Order: sequence, then C-alpha cells, then structure tokens
Amino acid sequence: MITLSKRMSQVQASAIRELLKLTELPEVLSFAGGLPAPEAFPVEALARAHAHVLAHDGASALQYGATEGFGPLRAWIAERMTKRGLPARAENVLVTAGSQQGIDLVAKALIDPGDVVILEEPSYLAALQAFSSYQAQFAVVGSDGEGMRVEELEEALRRTGAKLVYLVPNFQNPRGTTLSLERRELLARLASEQGVAVLEDDPYGELRYSGAALPLVAGFDAQATVIHLGSFSKTLAPGLRIGFAVADERIIRALTIAKQAADLHTGGLAQRAVLRLLETFDYDAHLRRLRQLYGERCAAMLASLERSFPAGAQWTRPEGGLFVWVRLPCGLDAEALLGAAMRERVAFVPGAPFYPHQPRRDTLRLNFSNRPPELIAEGMARLGSCIKDQLASPRSPREALA
Amino acid sequence: MITLSKRMSQVQASAIRELLKLTELPEVLSFAGGLPAPEAFPVEALARAHAHVLAHDGASALQYGATEGFGPLRAWIAERMTKRGLPARAENVLVTAGSQQGIDLVAKALIDPGDVVILEEPSYLAALQAFSSYQAQFAVVGSDGEGMRVEELEEALRRTGAKLVYLVPNFQNPRGTTLSLERRELLARLASEQGVAVLEDDPYGELRYSGAALPLVAGFDAQATVIHLGSFSKTLAPGLRIGFAVADERIIRALTIAKQAADLHTGGLAQRAVLRLLETFDYDAHLRRLRQLYGERCAAMLASLERSFPAGAQWTRPEGGLFVWVRLPCGLDAEALLGAAMRERVAFVPGAPFYPHQPRRDTLRLNFSNRPPELIAEGMARLGSCIKDQLASPRSPREALA
Repeated sequence: MITLSKRMSQVQASAIRELLKLTELPEVLSFAGGLPAPEAFPVEALARAHAHVLAHDGASALQYGATEGFGPLRAWIAERMTKRGLPARAENVLVTAGSQQGIDLVAKALIDPGDVVILEEPSYLAALQAFSSYQAQFAVVGSDGEGMRVEELEEALRRTGAKLVYLVPNFQNPRGTTLSLERRELLARLASEQGVAVLEDDPYGELRYSGAALPLVAGFDAQATVIHLGSFSKTLAPGLRIGFAVADERIIRALTIAKQAADLHTGGLAQRAVLRLLETFDYDAHLRRLRQLYGERCAAMLASLERSFPAGAQWTRPEGGLFVWVRLPCGLDAEALLGAAMRERVAFVPGAPFYPHQPRRDTLRLNFSNRPPELIAEGMARLGSCIKDQLASPRSPREALA
Repeated sequence: MITLSKRMSQVQASAIRELLKLTELPEVLSFAGGLPAPEAFPVEALARAHAHVLAHDGASALQYGATEGFGPLRAWIAERMTKRGLPARAENVLVTAGSQQGIDLVAKALIDPGDVVILEEPSYLAALQAFSSYQAQFAVVGSDGEGMRVEELEEALRRTGAKLVYLVPNFQNPRGTTLSLERRELLARLASEQGVAVLEDDPYGELRYSGAALPLVAGFDAQATVIHLGSFSKTLAPGLRIGFAVADERIIRALTIAKQAADLHTGGLAQRAVLRLLETFDYDAHLRRLRQLYGERCAAMLASLERSFPAGAQWTRPEGGLFVWVRLPCGLDAEALLGAAMRERVAFVPGAPFYPHQPRRDTLRLNFSNRPPELIAEGMARLGSCIKDQLASPRSPREALA
C-alpha cells in the first residue's frame, strides 16, 4: 500500500467533514456550515453576465489565461481596495480560487516544514488545514472580545521566531469578534519592526451590520509585509470561486509562481462574468441589501439565544460576518450535545476542531446567514431545550466529557 | 524582507513565463503555448448550458459544494472512464481545477521533501514545477519514439526507492510520443510488484488522429496504484478549469482532504454547465470534429517541417495531441534561435526547461493546434529560414552555445 506524505497525517480533516455532511441532510435545521443565503445570490444578473461574456468574448474567456488573473478584474479589485484604504495597483493583485486558495498559496510561498505560524485561538479550521499541509508548527496567542491579543504577540514572536501571523480581523471565523483599532495599529507596527509576515484574511470585511468600519491592517504601513485576502464568495456567490490576494509585487510574484504550479490560473469565464457583473449592476446597493438581510438574521440569532438558552451560556455579539460563538454552561461537552441535537433535527459545529492546541470542548459555532429569522428562532428553541436537558441529565457534565 | 520558503527556489518558473509572455504579442506567429483552437470551443452550447443551469439550479450551482465534486458529473466521468477501459464508480473520481491541480494534489498527498519522482526526460514543465513545489527530487529514465523507456524503470526504482512515477503516456508533452502497449503492461506490472505509485497524466488521450487507441495504464491491474488524470481543457475549453482524478477510494480520500485545504472545491457552476453540455450535445461528434481539425494541422506541421527545415533537423511524428518536438541540426542552440525567430515574428518554446537534469539545448517544442495550416506553413517557412541563417552564420553553433 502506498504511504501518504507526512503532512497528510497533520491535516486532520476527515472527522469534521463527515460530521458536516450529516448536518446537511435536508430534514436537519443546520447552523453548521458557513453558508451565505442562496436567496441573496444575484442569479439573474450573473446569468446575464455569463451570457454577455460568452456572446462577446467567448473565445478569450474559454482559452488559457494569465496566472495572475484577468487584467481588468485585477484593476477593478485594486481600485476598490484603494478606496477601502489599501493603496493598490493591478500588479499588487492576484486572482485566486476563493480566499481559501490564497491561504494555501501564502503557505506554499512562505512556509518551510517546521516554520511557526502564530494564530489566534480558536482559528478558522480550513486555515489550520492549509498550514498543516505545509507542515507548519502552530503557536497561539489568546483572544478576547476585541480579537487576537496582539499585546501578547511581541513576546510570542521573540519566543518562537514565527514566520507568519494569521488572523481574520473582521467578524472572525469562528468567534465573530473584530480586532480593535489599537490592536490593528500595533499589529502593523510589529510586522514592520519585527520582519514577520501577516496574513489578513478578510472574507467578511464588507459585511458589517453595526458599528463603524475599521482600517485594514494591510493599509497601515507600506513597509510591513501584510498580505490581504478578500473574496466574492460571501458578497456574490461561493460557487464562482473568485477571491484575491493583495500584497507587494515581490510577494505577488511568488504567489503567482506557486499558483502556476497549483492550477495554472483561475477560470477565465468566471473572472470575466464577475467583472461584467460588477461593472453593470450596483454592487454597493447589493451589499446594502445583504447587510440588511444578514443584520436582521444576526439580531434574530442573538434574540433567540437570549430567549432560549439557559442561564450560564455565553455568546459573542458580532458586528458583522456570519457567525456567533457560544460557550456552554457548566462545561457541557458540545460534541455530546450535537448527538442530542441531531436527534432533534438541529445542527451546529462543535468548537473543539477550531483550536490548534488545547480544545475547549464546551464551545460551539452557530451560523446565522443561511436561515431566516423564524427558523433561527425555531432552531435555537430546539437547541436551547437540548442544552437544558443535558444540564438536567443525571450524568454530570464531567461524565459527558469522558 | 520576508524570506520565501525553500521550495520556491526550486520552482524555476520565471524565465519561461516571461518568455512565453513575449511570444503572445499579437504580431508574433506563436507556436509556443499549448493552446487549443479557440474557434473549436463549443461557445454557443456552453452559453446555453450556463443559462440552463442558472435558470433551473442557480442557487445550488452558486452555493458552496462538496470537495469531491458535483455528484452527477463524477458519475458521468466514472461511466466514461469505465467505457475507456478503466472501471470506475463516482467514488473513484475527484473533480479538479484542470489536470494541473491533479498533479499538485497528488504531490501534496504523496510526496515528502526529498522523495524521488521518476520522470521521462524531457517532461511536462508545469509537472516539474508542481513536484518541485513539494521539494521532490527527480530521477530520470530516457525516452525514445515509444515514450518512456520503462525497461529501465526497474533498475531506477531499485536505485532510488522512488515514491512516484510520472508520465504522459498519450502524445506526450513536450515530445508528442506515445507509450507502447508492451511498456504500458510492464509499467502496470512494476507498479503492482514494486509498490510504487504511477501518475498517468492524460490530458490528450481523446485526441488521437491516427493509429489505434491503446489501453490506459490505470486499467491493467486493480492492485497497482495508478492515478489517472484527465481534463476537459483540451476537449471542451481550458477556461472552464475542469479536470479530474480517477483512483482507488483511499487515494481519492487523501486527494480530497488535500483539495479541501487547497481551494475547498471546484466551481459548482462550471461543473454543472459542463455536465449539462455533455448531456445535451453530441460530445463524441464534437471530438470527431476536433480530431479532424487537429489531425489536419498536425499533418500540415509535419509537411511544413519537411518542406522548410534544413537537412539534419529531426522531429517526432505524433499520432495525436498538440505538439511536435524538434531536434536542431549541428547542435544549434534553440534559445539563440528564438532571439532570431522573434525578430522574424515567429515563436516556439526552447526545449531546455523541459529537462529536469541535463538540458539538451538543441531541442524545441512546436504547437500545431492553435493555428490553421496556412499559418503553420508560413511560420515554419520563417523558422526554417532562421535555422538556415544560423547554420550559415560565421559564428559556429558551438559559439552560440557559449
């Protein structure tokens, strides 16, 4: 039997994948996946955009294309990022197959086996997998209601000699928290002073429902190596697989070489259709509608938790994004809870796999973007009952942990 | 300045990329890229397929999807591969972003730094890059008019303890040669007996213009670990970025985990549109038209070489695919020739970068799929003149090598 590479033993993906598949059964009211609302996809506008591109530029759209991406789309992204406070030209942009590929390419271009990546704990699961697939070692700094505790970073950098700091500053996955202004400034300063690269993964940045937008980490200091990842997966549709990396030209060149070896280039038709869409419909009005829709769902989730969850449960109050993070009362085990919840046809993701080091088994993640308020209320009522049942069970929570 | 990973210094991509960009200038008659003929893309059928999918299944097509790929497309591919002599079920198929991603994922799943990959010499350039990006070491066996000299493989396996054998058995890139039946049988037997994995990269297999189809290496022996890669890039259109890997379920699971970390999944809209196309138009009739078109271009290329190239030049006579491989007379240097050729507005790829070890600088690759016969004749007339000029130049070929 052919042995797999050592890195594959580090990429502990199977368990959570199998679990997520179960939660996708049609009869299950699932808050597990990070799915945007399909009813908000601009399906008709995308149909018109695809038809236009195929009618007017079909042969080019379907031919091999540049690894860097379609030039006019790179220029559009650069212009928008400049307006959002990250000065960029087309040469600073690489179009990727979603921001997940951006993480993979950054790891490929920067990480040697054994190199240390510093993460907030908990962190985005598929980022852990991507870094593991290049045999990175993880070091963690804590996080609180204002995101990663960047104050702890300087000491962690000295201790570990880390190569890269990874974080989701806006509406983090899985916790929904947002990095404060002071910490952004400090992070950019540390990146510049200590010569460590920062990967600012920002798939949700344009989805803020309350509070004021904060400047991008990548925009503070041109001397710092901050690689910014963005995506149209949450704002247009994930099935297009169009994301982007923005960085200095040397890094973009390295990511481009890594991408050429990985998949040659991102689909030319999808890139052109996205650009056509962006140029012909009111993207900002679309984003305003999305923020309205998701903001209502976020509020519904928070109100449902308040109403249905027992005393002692705690949760984050996100200002944007897709997720709320819950800490169960009395050390209840979220995986045991999931078994009970699935019997009641409601699902979530247990928090443990999001921890690179020491999992907190009494945590879970809830997605609120994929269900309307009434189903959120129904789902949280069911889940709240399950939690109360577990609390009342003769088996103590400590036994559930065993 | 942030240092790049060690693997990046092995991926020597830049030189050839920059060169290929030059050859793409509109005024240059280029035979450099491996481009299919855009006039043969089924643009209108693809437009109808995209419109249908977006009208009837838009929300699912645009949502996140399974890493393994869209189930009905996997089933279609499995059925076709079974008919082509590789018994497969949907569970044996992973949909990839072109077959290039298949190479990358196989390397990720199997190759640890320092592991040996055995290749024929010369080999597909972007496969060298993909393996290098996982710090593979290369061992080479020679090749002749019947492809890789598999007879040399047993000794090479013993000598190197190689993990993987990579080859393009049908109409190889860059040489256009086809692995003989005897060598296919021997390769499958060695894979089974010696426990080495074989990567059968077959993007051109359905594009045979003469001679009889040979059985797939992956079809000989279910005990052998042969991973088969296919693609719709050459038969439908590369801009869709849809390819596939076919292997035993354990390998497919490992590739799936690797893909999840790399880009989550391949675009759902593109996958559904390709399936809709395959189900609603006559794919085999389309392939027959393509074979007719490319077969004429291949014949035009061979006739033009005969007519325009000087005595002493040698070339392969491919039975399919996209490429002819040329050996220049008198040790002429192909890179020096390219400089002269670009002044005459004709381009090709020098052969040296295709060699993992010792480049033969008197070789070059010509693509014949992307230009009609009259432009092939015109291009080869120009290129033949350049070669004759170089031969007649007072500087000896040896000096040109310096």
